[in-house]
Amino acid sequence: MRGQVVLFGDSITEQSFRQGGWGAALANAYARKADVVLRGYGGYNTKWALFLLHHIFPPDSGRPPIATTIFFGANDAALSGRTSERQHVSIEDYKQNLRKIVLHLKECSPTMQIVLITPPPVCEEGRHAYAKSLYGENAMKLPERTNEVTGQYASACVETAKEMGVFSVDLWSKMQETDGWQKKFLSDGLHLTPDGNAIVYQEVIKIFNKAGLSADNMPLDFPHHSEIDAKNPEGAFQQKCF
Amino acid sequence: MRGQVVLFGDSITEQSFRQGGWGAALANAYARKADVVLRGYGGYNTKWALFLLHHIFPPDSGRPPIATTIFFGANDAALSGRTSERQHVSIEDYKQNLRKIVLHLKECSPTMQIVLITPPPVCEEGRHAYAKSLYGENAMKLPERTNEVTGQYASACVETAKEMGVFSVDLWSKMQETDGWQKKFLSDGLHLTPDGNAIVYQEVIKIFNKAGLSADNMPLDFPHHSEIDAKNPEGAFQQKCF
Repeated sequence: MRGQVVLFGDSITEQSFRQGGWGAALANAYARKADVVLRGYGGYNTKWALFLLHHIFPPDSGRPPIATTIFFGANDAALSGRTSERQHVSIEDYKQNLRKIVLHLKECSPTMQIVLITPPPVCEEGRHAYAKSLYGENAMKLPERTNEVTGQYASACVETAKEMGVFSVDLWSKMQETDGWQKKFLSDGLHLTPDGNAIVYQEVIKIFNKAGLSADNMPLDFPHHSEIDAKNPEGAFQQKCF
Repeated sequence: MRGQVVLFGDSITEQSFRQGGWGAALANAYARKADVVLRGYGGYNTKWALFLLHHIFPPDSGRPPIATTIFFGANDAALSGRTSERQHVSIEDYKQNLRKIVLHLKECSPTMQIVLITPPPVCEEGRHAYAKSLYGENAMKLPERTNEVTGQYASACVETAKEMGVFSVDLWSKMQETDGWQKKFLSDGLHLTPDGNAIVYQEVIKIFNKAGLSADNMPLDFPHHSEIDAKNPEGAFQQKCF
């Protein structure tokens, strides 16, 4: 049957089928060509992701994904000593965990296209406004994430991708090329607006196209309806069914 | 692993992951709980769908879907003797084909929840405007589908669902309860606007809830991040991983 494209990541992946989401846009682009499989885990960092790895990507599945996006780091980059400390993973451990994930996927399939996506930038003002909307004056005054520190994780992600010979999307840098990225791309200083989702979609599609996974060049799973002869439909299906 | 919900149908299913699409909304609602699998085939009628049945739903898969939506009829209802004649299937054959599809799914799994969805209503004026936008003055003056005839297919679909003891969504009737359904729910007199997609989503979710497939009551596939003890993450995964 069709190949699978697995989206493995944190909440920004889990929410990718909401209105305007990048996951849904991929599923639409690959309709009748590949299945887009959602494996997003809100709040997860790379350390916790490792516990899922062998469940989601069993080494002996016989049918490994044709491509996987790995999109962690937004939680790893939560600061030590602040409200989201429990999600914090050091940069060195983040890199090491990404390496383990990539190595495992390569073991599952040497031909799998692997795309590491960096965390998006953080708008500290947006995070604080969001915290105040939840907790009022009790909201922590000190940010639980900063854009600067998240940028270090983004660099580490890009470096790891280079080191491992896989693709990467430097979302942190890409989004900051646009004026007003803070509100245009981020809904609460961290998660994505529909415009932010569109950036992820465009960047991932660019890489899939480079990697030989252009939806335009992939065959339909079954005959296009215009190829079916109404008087002899069997003909089209005999040729095109596997 | 997780159960699968398969969306089997024509273009209205194939396009269901576009912006505001009902398929994407289902995938979002079942994130971390079930996989929503897109099996939509633009232009297909139930006669051609039968050729796909054993490929998409192999009887011996060992892992049949937990639920399937069957959403055909818009093409079966194309009128004989008009521009879309090749897609026409008689009402009797439409019913018989739906019966075959349901029977096959029941053979695959006696516990699968099956939902037949009727074609949406047709706005003949909208269809004509669409044809003119494509073909100008060469557009056929006579409609290739009428709302009245499509309504007969919708009734046949509901009857067949009753006869076979499976669920149905009478989309044709439901949409026409709202004033201005012609433009509110249909983009070209046949396919769905985001508002039209929202109706399909709401109606399907209602049935899934009745059928014991409420996403709210289904367990997460892995621990919620708040259940993970940062100092002893293994604990949460030992309990919750299968």
